[in-house]
Amino acid sequence: MLDKGNNDFRERIETSFAHQGAMALIGAELTRIQKGTVEIELSYDQKLTQQHGFLHAGIIAAVLDSACTYAAYTMIEPEASILTIEFKVNLMSPGKGDRFLFRGEITKPGSNIIVADGRAYSIGDGPAKLIASMTGTKMVLRGREELAG
Amino acid sequence: MLDKGNNDFRERIETSFAHQGAMALIGAELTRIQKGTVEIELSYDQKLTQQHGFLHAGIIAAVLDSACTYAAYTMIEPEASILTIEFKVNLMSPGKGDRFLFRGEITKPGSNIIVADGRAYSIGDGPAKLIASMTGTKMVLRGREELAG
Amino acid sequence: MLDKGNNDFRERIETSFAHQGAMALIGAELTRIQKGTVEIELSYDQKLTQQHGFLHAGIIAAVLDSACTYAAYTMIEPEASILTIEFKVNLMSPGKGDRFLFRGEITKPGSNIIVADGRAYSIGDGPAKLIASMTGTKMVLRGREELAG
Amino acid sequence: MLDKGNNDFRERIETSFAHQGAMALIGAELTRIQKGTVEIELSYDQKLTQQHGFLHAGIIAAVLDSACTYAAYTMIEPEASILTIEFKVNLMSPGKGDRFLFRGEITKPGSNIIVADGRAYSIGDGPAKLIASMTGTKMVLRGREELAG
Repeated sequence: MLDKGNNDFRERIETSFAHQGAMALIGAELTRIQKGTVEIELSYDQKLTQQHGFLHAGIIAAVLDSACTYAAYTMIEPEASILTIEFKVNLMSPGKGDRFLFRGEITKPGSNIIVADGRAYSIGDGPAKLIASMTGTKMVLRGREELAG
Repeated sequence: MLDKGNNDFRERIETSFAHQGAMALIGAELTRIQKGTVEIELSYDQKLTQQHGFLHAGIIAAVLDSACTYAAYTMIEPEASILTIEFKVNLMSPGKGDRFLFRGEITKPGSNIIVADGRAYSIGDGPAKLIASMTGTKMVLRGREELAG
Repeated sequence: MLDKGNNDFRERIETSFAHQGAMALIGAELTRIQKGTVEIELSYDQKLTQQHGFLHAGIIAAVLDSACTYAAYTMIEPEASILTIEFKVNLMSPGKGDRFLFRGEITKPGSNIIVADGRAYSIGDGPAKLIASMTGTKMVLRGREELAG
Repeated sequence: MLDKGNNDFRERIETSFAHQGAMALIGAELTRIQKGTVEIELSYDQKLTQQHGFLHAGIIAAVLDSACTYAAYTMIEPEASILTIEFKVNLMSPGKGDRFLFRGEITKPGSNIIVADGRAYSIGDGPAKLIASMTGTKMVLRGREELAG
């Protein structure tokens, strides 16, 4: 039930995601894009760990930030761009498991400032386990072509 | 002028840092350890970018979190361990430049909770440019040998 | 459908709330207590404003913090106590209106650390309008009688 | 050594502060204004407490937010206004003591977004004791006369 506008942001987000060197480096995959919500998944890899062998808090933050940023991209006109001003992350359970899901959702749309909330889950055989949450503040940029994308 | 205690935490931090798969993956180097302060440096690499080619906010968060965590390790007894409960990051300037410095410093030591503040700078030929700040809350863990290190 | 345990926390929270000088000063009322969720309401008063005549961000934070703290009290044993370690507030719309609702909910229970999320709404004739959100980190204190309550 | 510009913001801040019902309600006093730094002081009062008789975290947040906001006012042109987008507060020590000092300082000026850091201290006979810190993000508003001040 995607309308033209939706297809616009979908293609744009996929292209932009493909330009994020960091997401490629860690093996993150864009798995869901819909208006107001973006999901990214990641498989566990020892290369992504902190000193105890769990997913590094910064890696969790990186993927949550990407999910929240792209959720914000679903709310803006095609010429505009999104910049993360700040975010806060709560780490609730150790990042252990085989695979992780990161969901970014828009809490407050706006023409200049967008607030997004993200949740990170360890997903496996059993029920998903919440491992972290993020609240992030995004600024909508216009007329800065060099940042478009 | 390192005393025995300092050498203890220095060696411990170096060993722990070497176990952080994420820091190795991105090429981060531990460049300074002293009581209450830890610095990590990182060179720009296209693999570490967001969609505009700047250092990804999550990579900035990852290194700041490591710097703050290891600053906390300088404040605890050798048997204890540090867990990040939460952090907040403000992104102030685009992460552009050839090389970056991340400094974590202890704002409030404590037997259970430690608060650390971090600053990230783009460093190059000119004066260092502040690109981001972090405030992070750490919990001191004791008697959980599996997390030691 | 409150069981005995629930009644225990209800009475305890009401007594504790009555000891919060700050909540009395601003005229806040405890309007809902159930396991994992606490609501507080507040009427607009010019004494509670910032320089533009809207509800002061700090007043919003104060009530959200109380709502989140008491939500945490519903999760702990009667002898324990709750201490706020930190919180983050996003101000999304001006605090204007006649009456406001602040809801605190537990996102992650825990024996030592509890994470709560709060939402503040302007409520009136029309639909409730989200004006702010909070994420707060709480520590469970035990064996510190002077802090009980 | 105040120049004309400084006097401009000084008078403006004093007038604005006088319009903050919340600051009057709690008895806060503006004690220092200089470019990039604003200080507010507050005396202990049982009316400002949480359930343990210490200064309520929300009151601490309210005064820190005002100090940070007015520090931002020292950085903008007289026609512009400041709006708090979000803040994070870490509570480090119980808010006990007779008198408290709240300092807001500009960490990152900007034409659209300003980042300020605040520190709250219990001040008395001995050395000042750090009780809380804030990082806040401010937006510069222009052309919205209704918000000027």
